[in-house]
Amino acid sequence: MTGRLYGVGVGPGDPELMTLKAVRILSEVSVVAYPAPGEGESSARKIAAAFLPAGGTEIAIRIDMRPGPEPMGVYDQAATEIAVHLDAGRDVAVLCEGDPFFYGSFAYLYSRLAKRFPTTIVPGVSSLTACAAASGRPLVSRDESLAVLPATLPDEALEERLHGFDAAAILKVGRHLPRLQALLGRLGLKDRSTYVAHASREDGDVAPLAEVHGKDAPYFSMILVTRNSSP
Amino acid sequence: MTGRLYGVGVGPGDPELMTLKAVRILSEVSVVAYPAPGEGESSARKIAAAFLPAGGTEIAIRIDMRPGPEPMGVYDQAATEIAVHLDAGRDVAVLCEGDPFFYGSFAYLYSRLAKRFPTTIVPGVSSLTACAAASGRPLVSRDESLAVLPATLPDEALEERLHGFDAAAILKVGRHLPRLQALLGRLGLKDRSTYVAHASREDGDVAPLAEVHGKDAPYFSMILVTRNSSP
Repeated sequence: MTGRLYGVGVGPGDPELMTLKAVRILSEVSVVAYPAPGEGESSARKIAAAFLPAGGTEIAIRIDMRPGPEPMGVYDQAATEIAVHLDAGRDVAVLCEGDPFFYGSFAYLYSRLAKRFPTTIVPGVSSLTACAAASGRPLVSRDESLAVLPATLPDEALEERLHGFDAAAILKVGRHLPRLQALLGRLGLKDRSTYVAHASREDGDVAPLAEVHGKDAPYFSMILVTRNSSP
Repeated sequence: MTGRLYGVGVGPGDPELMTLKAVRILSEVSVVAYPAPGEGESSARKIAAAFLPAGGTEIAIRIDMRPGPEPMGVYDQAATEIAVHLDAGRDVAVLCEGDPFFYGSFAYLYSRLAKRFPTTIVPGVSSLTACAAASGRPLVSRDESLAVLPATLPDEALEERLHGFDAAAILKVGRHLPRLQALLGRLGLKDRSTYVAHASREDGDVAPLAEVHGKDAPYFSMILVTRNSSP
C-alpha cells in the first residue's frame, strides 16, 4: 500500500481561514511539504504552523523568487523526495497558500505524482474571495461575468480580455501597479477599482485604486474591478 | 451598541470545508439567518447544522427558486427583521453557500444593511475551487487567465468572452447543458471541458464533458475548461 498525496489549501493567510478538513488532514499525516523562498520562512507553513504534526517530517521546497522561468529541476527533486515517502506507505500533505488548483505551484507536483499515487485535493479559501471580502464590495452577483487576469499580461491583452466583463480581478499586481492604474484610468474603470494586498493577514491593505499613490505593491496584491451599483 | 452583521461563507457543501472562523462565529452569535427554498430545507443551514448555536434564533429567508427576477420584497423584509436584532445589540450571522461575495444572494442583504451596521465578511471555499478540486485538473497556473461566466448568457456573449482566455468556468449549468455542449463542441473546447455537479457533496458528479449524455444537470453544476497540457 502506497501513501496518499494531499494537496491542502491553507487559505489566504489568516490561520482561522483554514478549513476543518485541512486541519484534520494535517493531524493525520506524518510528512508535510511546502513551498519556501530561497532563504527564510515559508508563508504556507506559517499559516498552518499551529496544526503541523509534532515530530513529523518536513520538506521545504525552496524556490528562488526572482522573476524568470519556474525552476523545474526543483519540482523534479521535490517530487522524487515525496515519492519515497509515498512508496513507503506514508501519507504526504503539500501545503498550498490559498487553493491548490488556483495559481498554485502545487500543479507542478500534481503533474509529477498524481498518476502514480492516490491523490486528494482539499480546496481552500482563495485570494480571490479573500480580497473581495476585504474590499467590502460584492465581486459578482446574478448573471455577471468575471475576468481573472494576471498582472503580467501586456496592456493590449488585458484590455482585450476586460472587454465585455462586468467584473475583474487582476492578480499579482506588484511592480505592475503604476501601469495598471494608467490602463484602468484610460478604460474608465479606475473609479470601480479597489486595491487589496495581503487580504486576511495582519499587514493587509485596502484602498480605492484612485486613492493609491506611490505605493510599493507587494507581489500578493490584487486589483478588483466591480460594478458600482448595488444589487 | 448595535450588533455586528456577519456574512459567513460555509463552503460548497461538505461541512468539513467550513473554515475555523465560520465555526467560531457561529458559536458566538445568537441569531442566524439563511436563504431557503419556498418549502423545505435550506442547503446553507444543512451544511452548518452541526455548528449552529443551540436555542438561538433562526431566520429562514424563503425564496421561490423558479426562474424570474429576484424577489426584492423578500430581502427588504429579511433586512428589516435582521435589523431589529442588530439594533437590539445582538450579532447576526447570515449563512452563505460557498462565499458571500461570489454569486451569493447575501449581496442583497449587504446592500441593505452594511451602511447602517458594522459588518464582517468571512470568505469561504467557493464552488469554483471546489469544482476544480473535484475535476482533478488544475484550473489556472502561472500567467493563465480565467473567464468566469454564468450559463444564462446567450451563445454569442459566451463565445465572445471565452475568446483569448486560457481557462473558463461556466456556472449554474442546469438546463443549459445541451446548448453549452454544442457551443463548446463548435469552439473546439469540448475535449478540454469537465462537467462537475455538487462538488464536495455526497451526490457529487464529475465527468469529461464529451462523455456526458442525456444528463439532467442540476442548477449547481459547472463546466470547467482547462488547458490540456500539464505545467
